[in-house]
Amino acid sequence: MNITAFEYEDSIVVVDCGLAFPEDDMYGIDMVIPDTTYLEENIDKVKGFVITHGHEDHIGALPYVLQKVNVPVYATRLTMGLIENKLEEHGMLEMTHRTMVHFGQTVNLGKFRVEFIKTNHSIVDAAALAIYSPVGTVIHTGDFKVDYTPVYGDAIDLQRFAELGRNGVLALLADSTNAERPGFTPSEKTVGVTIDRIFAEHKDSRIIIATFASNVDRVQQIINSASKYGRKVVVEGRSMVQVIAIAQQLGCIRIPKNTLIETDDLRNYPDNKQTIITTGSQGESMASLTRMAEDTHRKIKIKPGDTIIFSSHPIPGNEKSVTNVINKLLVKGANVIFQDVHVSGHPCQEDLKLIYSLVKPKYAVPVHGEYRHLIAQAKIAESLGIPKENIIILRSGNVLEMDQKSAKVTGNVPTGAIMVDGLGVGDIGNAVLRDRQHLAEDGIVIVSFAMDSEDQVVGTPEIASRGFVYIKEAEALMNGATLVVQKTLDDAEKRSITDRNRIRTLVKDALSDFFWKKTERRPMILPMILEV
Amino acid sequence: MNITAFEYEDSIVVVDCGLAFPEDDMYGIDMVIPDTTYLEENIDKVKGFVITHGHEDHIGALPYVLQKVNVPVYATRLTMGLIENKLEEHGMLEMTHRTMVHFGQTVNLGKFRVEFIKTNHSIVDAAALAIYSPVGTVIHTGDFKVDYTPVYGDAIDLQRFAELGRNGVLALLADSTNAERPGFTPSEKTVGVTIDRIFAEHKDSRIIIATFASNVDRVQQIINSASKYGRKVVVEGRSMVQVIAIAQQLGCIRIPKNTLIETDDLRNYPDNKQTIITTGSQGESMASLTRMAEDTHRKIKIKPGDTIIFSSHPIPGNEKSVTNVINKLLVKGANVIFQDVHVSGHPCQEDLKLIYSLVKPKYAVPVHGEYRHLIAQAKIAESLGIPKENIIILRSGNVLEMDQKSAKVTGNVPTGAIMVDGLGVGDIGNAVLRDRQHLAEDGIVIVSFAMDSEDQVVGTPEIASRGFVYIKEAEALMNGATLVVQKTLDDAEKRSITDRNRIRTLVKDALSDFFWKKTERRPMILPMILEV
Repeated sequence: MNITAFEYEDSIVVVDCGLAFPEDDMYGIDMVIPDTTYLEENIDKVKGFVITHGHEDHIGALPYVLQKVNVPVYATRLTMGLIENKLEEHGMLEMTHRTMVHFGQTVNLGKFRVEFIKTNHSIVDAAALAIYSPVGTVIHTGDFKVDYTPVYGDAIDLQRFAELGRNGVLALLADSTNAERPGFTPSEKTVGVTIDRIFAEHKDSRIIIATFASNVDRVQQIINSASKYGRKVVVEGRSMVQVIAIAQQLGCIRIPKNTLIETDDLRNYPDNKQTIITTGSQGESMASLTRMAEDTHRKIKIKPGDTIIFSSHPIPGNEKSVTNVINKLLVKGANVIFQDVHVSGHPCQEDLKLIYSLVKPKYAVPVHGEYRHLIAQAKIAESLGIPKENIIILRSGNVLEMDQKSAKVTGNVPTGAIMVDGLGVGDIGNAVLRDRQHLAEDGIVIVSFAMDSEDQVVGTPEIASRGFVYIKEAEALMNGATLVVQKTLDDAEKRSITDRNRIRTLVKDALSDFFWKKTERRPMILPMILEV
Repeated sequence: MNITAFEYEDSIVVVDCGLAFPEDDMYGIDMVIPDTTYLEENIDKVKGFVITHGHEDHIGALPYVLQKVNVPVYATRLTMGLIENKLEEHGMLEMTHRTMVHFGQTVNLGKFRVEFIKTNHSIVDAAALAIYSPVGTVIHTGDFKVDYTPVYGDAIDLQRFAELGRNGVLALLADSTNAERPGFTPSEKTVGVTIDRIFAEHKDSRIIIATFASNVDRVQQIINSASKYGRKVVVEGRSMVQVIAIAQQLGCIRIPKNTLIETDDLRNYPDNKQTIITTGSQGESMASLTRMAEDTHRKIKIKPGDTIIFSSHPIPGNEKSVTNVINKLLVKGANVIFQDVHVSGHPCQEDLKLIYSLVKPKYAVPVHGEYRHLIAQAKIAESLGIPKENIIILRSGNVLEMDQKSAKVTGNVPTGAIMVDGLGVGDIGNAVLRDRQHLAEDGIVIVSFAMDSEDQVVGTPEIASRGFVYIKEAEALMNGATLVVQKTLDDAEKRSITDRNRIRTLVKDALSDFFWKKTERRPMILPMILEV
């Protein structure tokens, strides 16, 4: 959920506008977007969004935020292609202003100028941003890696980083994701070598290879190997098909003629002429590879002898899902390769040291990553001689004021997670989430009874439950519960209690006690009174 | 949830009886225990449980299973201490038969004899089992590692493995957990060296160190370092306090006099004289370290400058929880060390090769671990020259029949996960779980209305929801829903529909459509009809 605003007098420039995937306890939530109250309240100042690259955590909230803060969006080619695809799905192409920029180009945004600098990352066309302000230059790296031999396009423009450093950089905001890892991040091309070797070693079997939908370079390298070994290629998974189509249109991927085929055409080729590139490398429940593993894919069935490659590492939190998918594939007799067919898209410690040494910023402001990763980058900055007081760890919402004399956190703007569930944006709050958590843990018991205008209970109370016990086997329990309700209502009548809320509370407490004693569970209890 | 039965004619011996922790989608479930139908149906044959070691996934289901299959339990000293502690909590000491065995001792169990062989593991007193039957000897390693320099007691009895191998072993059932990892597992003592170094390097700060509650050797080594540097030690976390008390009673841990103090006495010592050994190394939500990180621990508050050590690796699935705790500790200004202060308790590839080479079994039956790990061990066995057809990968419930001539899967016994929720054992089935999942995702809408004996609706329908929308902000939506219900009931009356189930279905479908159109959510809908 990356979003950072830079403000000087009447000008605000916003870097990135990403979504986050819901935490495990955010039941039923589709995605999370940032609170942009501050931008909405200062909309007259906001000159535009400048986007570093096309990953969801950097562009995913644009369709929501642009509805409230409709300002121009600036991005490089593939990044813009992906943004436009997203805006089109939301029917927002007409209403938004977009400008494609080239590397090296600078855009004027009020008191700011922003230059897009070539970097490398696990998606094509990633950019760092040099943000020029009257008080100095800030460099925001975005997500990046140092790749001297990238698959597509140029290597990161280290000369420009050096040049800016020579001219003086006020602050460096650099990617912390891998700041705990020693050494250098290897080139994407090293993965190509591995993939090539696997193709050479598995000439007789079908090859199915899972990777991230947006990693165009990875797909390129797989296609290269497939083509080299005379195989046809199928791309499986909606998101990957989309990204590859856009990348192809924009010329970011080169697919030899007669290589790509449709899934339905696989039947015309023997196994050893087939390559299937698929989504699902993180064990995502609806992704193509997962459906193949679970035998619910309509067109592709895993067979003994299939070679299946995970060209990915599990993102923290996905380890179990990935293992579940691997297990299922192995049970089907497939040969599964899941080690060493991936490199990271983020800088390790030595890469960060290189960037710091080129840029030599006055202030270090580690960004991107968990708090532990920011701290790890802070330690690197310190080891390079940046004074401790010039290293600033920000929390979400912090306002950092800086110039050549000082840098300090001077306040906070509203921040937080706005949850999206279906069509609802922000209508699910903590109360609803807490209810969902309670319902998930213990289920619900509803007791409904009718009262007339003379405060008499009419008829028999009805009890129903969901997610609490299996009713058919818990008849005695539910009969007991009905008696408890009857008795409570009788008592209330004897004590002439007629206040509906009080009656509701009495019934709730009595049932809650009863169920705890019988089951040591605490279902949600919902009394409903019908007035008849 | 480890449990394996060995059967020969009228005799069954059961190795281990463990629980499993619930999967992420088993909402509200406390733990999972194995289905023991087969043992219950053949109870006359069951001669006893032989237990390899005291971890929950090997002993945790005993209190439940012994209620149905009450046969003698055999285990080594600490293992038995932990079992008895567990049985005492369930008030089952009187009703169960338990025999403590020594390493090298053999117990007669019908047609079987079972010998307990010394191994090493991340808990003291772990045993491998040699199971002698009329058709040959089977070795079950339990969870183990090869530690030439263990902290407490002897190294694994490699000579006995060799001797048994010389005499001929029918099958080896060996621990697969680390079978994907190359190399050897380092000795537990190497962690002691690291801990000692950290104590030497952090002489001025308080040291808080989290590890697994049952890892007595790890606690011993921390106490050794604390004692060496003149620090007092507090043990925090109910499960760890229990295990250490039992280990101390049984003489498995040596704590120098005047070293252990109570948490309340910490205030009498300066920070640099304090060591706190705590649970919570996996980021478990209720564990002591987590409560310290979240500021909900009643007695211990994290301070800037505290040195906090994770003497553990995150178990797959716990990565995010661990990172959350690390982040919170860092935010409080603590110095957190989480790398290289742990070794595994399971054999890596070279350790497995050693055991195979000593035992030289006819059949290899990899156990313990995910399916992917069993496959990894199978590959190791194959690389050592065991014919592929003599390597058998079992699924839960498989019946493997073997003798000197052949080994094959000949059938299945009932198997599966019995879910424990509060006092309920096995009463939560898939229907209730599916309801909990649905409730968690989308919440519930209840619509209650009264009908009289003449099939007329009496009064106004009531609608309530939980976990669906925040009612106060969704008044219009709920008013719309009430109109939909009214209209549906009116239509039903016009069409002279009086069948209650049919009316329920009509209301459910109408509301479901209405909510989907308005919100793109699918809450559970529960119509309740009161007869008045």
